Amino acid sequence: MTEEKETKKKIEIIENSLGRKFPSYIEGYGEVIPFQGAWSNLYLKKKPTTLSLGSEIRPQDKMCSTLEEALKKCKVFNGMTVSFHHHLREGDGIVNLTMKALKEMGVKGIKLAPSALFNVHSGLVDYLNDGTIETVLGSMNGSIGVQVSLGKMQGVGVLRSHGGRVRSIVQDDMHIDLAVIGAPTADNYGNANGIDGKSACGPLAYSNIDSKLADKVIIVTDNLVPYPASPISISQVNVDYVVEVESIGDPNKIVSGTLRIVRKEPLITISNNTAAVVEHSGLMKEGFNFQAGAGSISLLTVERIGEMMKKTGVKAGWVNGGTTSLIVDLFRQDYVKKLTTCQAFDLVSVESLRNDKNHLEINIDEYANICNKGCLVNLLDIVVLGATEVDVDFNVNVNTHSDGYLKHGIGGHQDTAAGAKLTIITVPLARRDNPIIIDSVTTVTTPGECIDVVVTEDGIAVNPLRPKLEKMLKEAGLPVMDIHELKELAEKKAGKGYVKPETKERIVAVIEWRDGSVIDVVREVVPKEKK
Amino acid sequence: MTEEKETKKKIEIIENSLGRKFPSYIEGYGEVIPFQGAWSNLYLKKKPTTLSLGSEIRPQDKMCSTLEEALKKCKVFNGMTVSFHHHLREGDGIVNLTMKALKEMGVKGIKLAPSALFNVHSGLVDYLNDGTIETVLGSMNGSIGVQVSLGKMQGVGVLRSHGGRVRSIVQDDMHIDLAVIGAPTADNYGNANGIDGKSACGPLAYSNIDSKLADKVIIVTDNLVPYPASPISISQVNVDYVVEVESIGDPNKIVSGTLRIVRKEPLITISNNTAAVVEHSGLMKEGFNFQAGAGSISLLTVERIGEMMKKTGVKAGWVNGGTTSLIVDLFRQDYVKKLTTCQAFDLVSVESLRNDKNHLEINIDEYANICNKGCLVNLLDIVVLGATEVDVDFNVNVNTHSDGYLKHGIGGHQDTAAGAKLTIITVPLARRDNPIIIDSVTTVTTPGECIDVVVTEDGIAVNPLRPKLEKMLKEAGLPVMDIHELKELAEKKAGKGYVKPETKERIVAVIEWRDGSVIDVVREVVPKEKK
Repeated sequence: MTEEKETKKKIEIIENSLGRKFPSYIEGYGEVIPFQGAWSNLYLKKKPTTLSLGSEIRPQDKMCSTLEEALKKCKVFNGMTVSFHHHLREGDGIVNLTMKALKEMGVKGIKLAPSALFNVHSGLVDYLNDGTIETVLGSMNGSIGVQVSLGKMQGVGVLRSHGGRVRSIVQDDMHIDLAVIGAPTADNYGNANGIDGKSACGPLAYSNIDSKLADKVIIVTDNLVPYPASPISISQVNVDYVVEVESIGDPNKIVSGTLRIVRKEPLITISNNTAAVVEHSGLMKEGFNFQAGAGSISLLTVERIGEMMKKTGVKAGWVNGGTTSLIVDLFRQDYVKKLTTCQAFDLVSVESLRNDKNHLEINIDEYANICNKGCLVNLLDIVVLGATEVDVDFNVNVNTHSDGYLKHGIGGHQDTAAGAKLTIITVPLARRDNPIIIDSVTTVTTPGECIDVVVTEDGIAVNPLRPKLEKMLKEAGLPVMDIHELKELAEKKAGKGYVKPETKERIVAVIEWRDGSVIDVVREVVPKEKK
Repeated sequence: MTEEKETKKKIEIIENSLGRKFPSYIEGYGEVIPFQGAWSNLYLKKKPTTLSLGSEIRPQDKMCSTLEEALKKCKVFNGMTVSFHHHLREGDGIVNLTMKALKEMGVKGIKLAPSALFNVHSGLVDYLNDGTIETVLGSMNGSIGVQVSLGKMQGVGVLRSHGGRVRSIVQDDMHIDLAVIGAPTADNYGNANGIDGKSACGPLAYSNIDSKLADKVIIVTDNLVPYPASPISISQVNVDYVVEVESIGDPNKIVSGTLRIVRKEPLITISNNTAAVVEHSGLMKEGFNFQAGAGSISLLTVERIGEMMKKTGVKAGWVNGGTTSLIVDLFRQDYVKKLTTCQAFDLVSVESLRNDKNHLEINIDEYANICNKGCLVNLLDIVVLGATEVDVDFNVNVNTHSDGYLKHGIGGHQDTAAGAKLTIITVPLARRDNPIIIDSVTTVTTPGECIDVVVTEDGIAVNPLRPKLEKMLKEAGLPVMDIHELKELAEKKAGKGYVKPETKERIVAVIEWRDGSVIDVVREVVPKEKK
C-alpha cells in the first residue's frame, strides 16, 4: 500500500472493529483497510507479486571487493526500499555499514525494511534527520522507536508481525528493491547459512522471503567458504552479488553465551501459574507441541513444563523457537522429538541446529505467513507470550509502553496468538507504578479474540469466549477470576491508575494485523517534562 | 506458449541457426522462437509468472482419505495441465494411479507434464487414444516415445531439458494447474522428502518448482510420519492436500540395489580415453568438480578419475549427480569434499543423502535453470555425457534413434553442456549397423557450440572452437583427429551409411533449447516393414 497515490478520495475518520479510529487514507502509507477480525480480511489483498528473474546470461563472478561496488552494481536509487534481517540482533553490523555507504553515495529517501531494528541502530536517527532515511517499514526496538515516537521520522513507520512481513512482500504491499543479507557463512555464488563462522547466529529465516522476492540481493559475509556453502538457507539462485568483509557484527552480542534467567517474584509465581494452566488445559498429551520465548517467565515456564514431562512421561512432538538451551536440553533428553527454529537465542541452540538432524531451520513463510497454504502456527497447541499491557477485552499491546512510546516490534505475537489452540499471556499486574491490566490498551497489537488466558501472579483470567477452558481451570483449583477483578488488583498494586499518554494528532506508525489490515496506529508523543 | 492462439499470423517455414526448418506457428504448441545460439535468446521470454497464494484461511486438515477425494477438492477440469516427477523411475506408481482416477472422473484433454515418463507408463497410450490425454509436455523415454513417433498422440509433445522445464514454469510458458507429487515420506501438513520410507528415492528435486508454482498441489505418500517430516524437500506452505496410499511404487525399480557396470569393449577404451582427456585438460586441479551419469562409460570414467585422484592426491571440491555409489565411495574416502544431488541412482546414494551432512539435495532450479541468478551448471568444470548421434558440426542428438523414433528425454544434457568448461561426449563409433558419427544428426538436442570433445574408442575429436584444448590433448599423445575422420571410421565400422528415416510432415514433438527457443522438431515416423 505504501506509495499508493491514486485519485484523491475523500479522507474520513474510520473505526475498526476494535473501536480504534484513524483516517481512511494516511499520507505516506496509503489507503487503510480497517481490521475487522482476526480472520476476516484475508481475501481483501489477494494480489500476488511476480517472481524476479535473474539478470545474468552467462556464468560470472558474483564477488565484489567492496560493499560500495556491489551497491553500485545494484543501481541504488533515491526512494528505494532496502531490507535487512535481525538475526544478528544487538551485534548487527550490516545495517549501519550499508546505510553509511548509501549515505556516502548520496542516496536519499530510503525506505528501510528491516525485520527489526535494535539499540545498536540508534545512530540511524541522524539519517532520519538528514533525509537519507524516509521511513522504517519494520519493527523498531528500543531507542529508534522512541525517536520515531517523538516525531523524528519524516515518513510513517509500518509495523508488521513476522508473518505479516512475509505476507506484505508476497502480496507486493512492500516491494523490496534491494536486500542486503549479512551471512555468517557464504560461498562465492551466494549460497549462505547462519550456522557456521565466527558470527554464527543460527537460522537466516527472516531473510528467506527477501532473497526470493527482492529485485537485487547482496550477501555480505565474514566467512567465505568453498562452493557450495551448506546447508543452504539462502540459495545462489536468488543472489546477485557477494561481498566479503572483516566482520558482519559483534559475536558477543549476536547470541548469548548462556541464558540468564531472573529467578525472582513475581516472575516465579507467574510461571508456576502458567505451567498449571498448561497442565490442566487438556492439551498436554503425547506428541503435543508448544512455543515459548526467551524472557524469564517463558524460560521458567519451560522449566516447569519440562519437569511435568519428566514426571508424567508425556513427550512433546515438537517445539518451535526462538530456541534456547533449555529447549535443546529437553530435546536431547528425548522429551521433545523435533525442534523447529526461526531464531536461535544462544550458542547451544546454534550448535544444535548445526549438528542435530532433527533440529530444523524453518523460514518465516513456513512459520507464520497467513497467505500461504499452511504455516506452522496453525498447528501450535500452546504458546506463551508476554505483553506491555492487556485490557479487559483481552486486547494485548506489545508495541508501546504505557507512556505511549514505541519500544518493541510485534515479532510472532499476532501469528502465534491467532494460530495456537491455547494462547497464554503472562504479565505481572504492575510494572513500577503502572497497572498492566487496564480498561483499554494504549495500542492494540493482538485482538482479544486470539487470547485465551491471561496469567498474573495473583490470578488468572480466561477469555469468556472459552467457557470450557475456564471450567477446567476452575475445577483444577487455579485462581481463576474475572478480567475486571484482575484489573482492580493491578490498579491496587500499581498505586495509580492508567493515565493515557498525551499524543498529537500526527500518526508516526501504523500497526498492521498479519493480514494487512490496520489494527491500530501510533501517534506522536508529547514528552512529559522530566521531574 | 502452449495454447497461445492470438490473431492468426501467416504461418511460414522458418529456419533456426542450425538450419533446422519448421513452421513459424505450430498448432497445439504456438508461436515458435527459433534457436539462434546457446546464449542468444534469453531475453526474448522474460515473462515471470506470479506466485500462487494459499486458499485456506483457517488451519484445517489437509488429509484426504483417497486420491479421488483430493482430486475433487482440487476441482480438476478438462484441458488442465497435470505434473509429476520421475524420481521413482521405472518403479513409479503415481502417474498411472492418478491418470486412472482422472479418466474415471471423466476428465478429458489433459496436458501431462511429467519431468519424464518411462516404460512403466506405456499403458498411457490408451489414454492418448481415448482423448483423456491430449499431449505430453515432458520427456518421453522408451515405448511411450515410440507411440508418439507413430502419431498416436493428438497434441504436440514438448521436450525440455531439466533446466528448461523449470524455466518454462517460471516464465509461465507451462502453467501447471495441478502437481501430484509422490513422496516417500510426508507429514499430514504436506512437508515431504524422498530419503526415508520403503519407497525412498533420494531427492524430490524435480518437483520443487512444481510445488512452488502449481495452482494446486497434492502429496501422495506411503510413509506418513508425525509432523514435521524432515528434511523438508517439499514445504507445507505449497501443499493443498495429502493422501496416504498403500504404495507409491515398486521399491525394486525405484533405485538399483547395486550398480551394474558393463565391462566390455568398446566401453572400456572409450572411458580410458575420456579419463585421459580429463587428465590433460588442465582442469583436474585441487578443488575441481565434475558430473558424470550412471551409464557404463560414465561409471568406468569415474573409476579412472578416482584412480587418478588417488595417484596424484588431487581432490575434488564437489561432484554433482545423478549420484552413484562410486561417487559416494570417493566422497567417503575424502577425495570429494561435497556432493550435490538432484537424483540418486542407487541405495548407497540414498543412504548417503540421508546421513552425510556434506551431501546436499539441490533442486532443479538450483541445478540448471538458465533464467535465475545463477545455477550450478554454470560452475561445472567437467561433464561426461552420452549421445545417440553426433554430427560433424558437433551437434548432438539424445532424443531420437537413427530410425527417427523418439526414445529419450533431454535430461540435463543441454544444461550441463552449455555450462561446463569441458563438455565431453562419449560414444561408440557404431551401434549395431548404425554409424553414430554422421553428417547431420536426425534431431539436434544440443548444439555443437556447447560440445568440446567427442571421445570414441578409436579417436578423439576436439571442437575447432577450442584450438588450445586440441593442442594440449595432441601434445599429450592422445589419438586426436578431425571429426570428419571419426565419421569415416564410424561408417566403416557400421558397415552401412546413415539412412535418414522416412518421416511425414506432421510434427509430433518440439525440442526446446533450455531458453525456450526451438532447436528442432520431431516428425511422425513412417514405420519400416519388418523383415
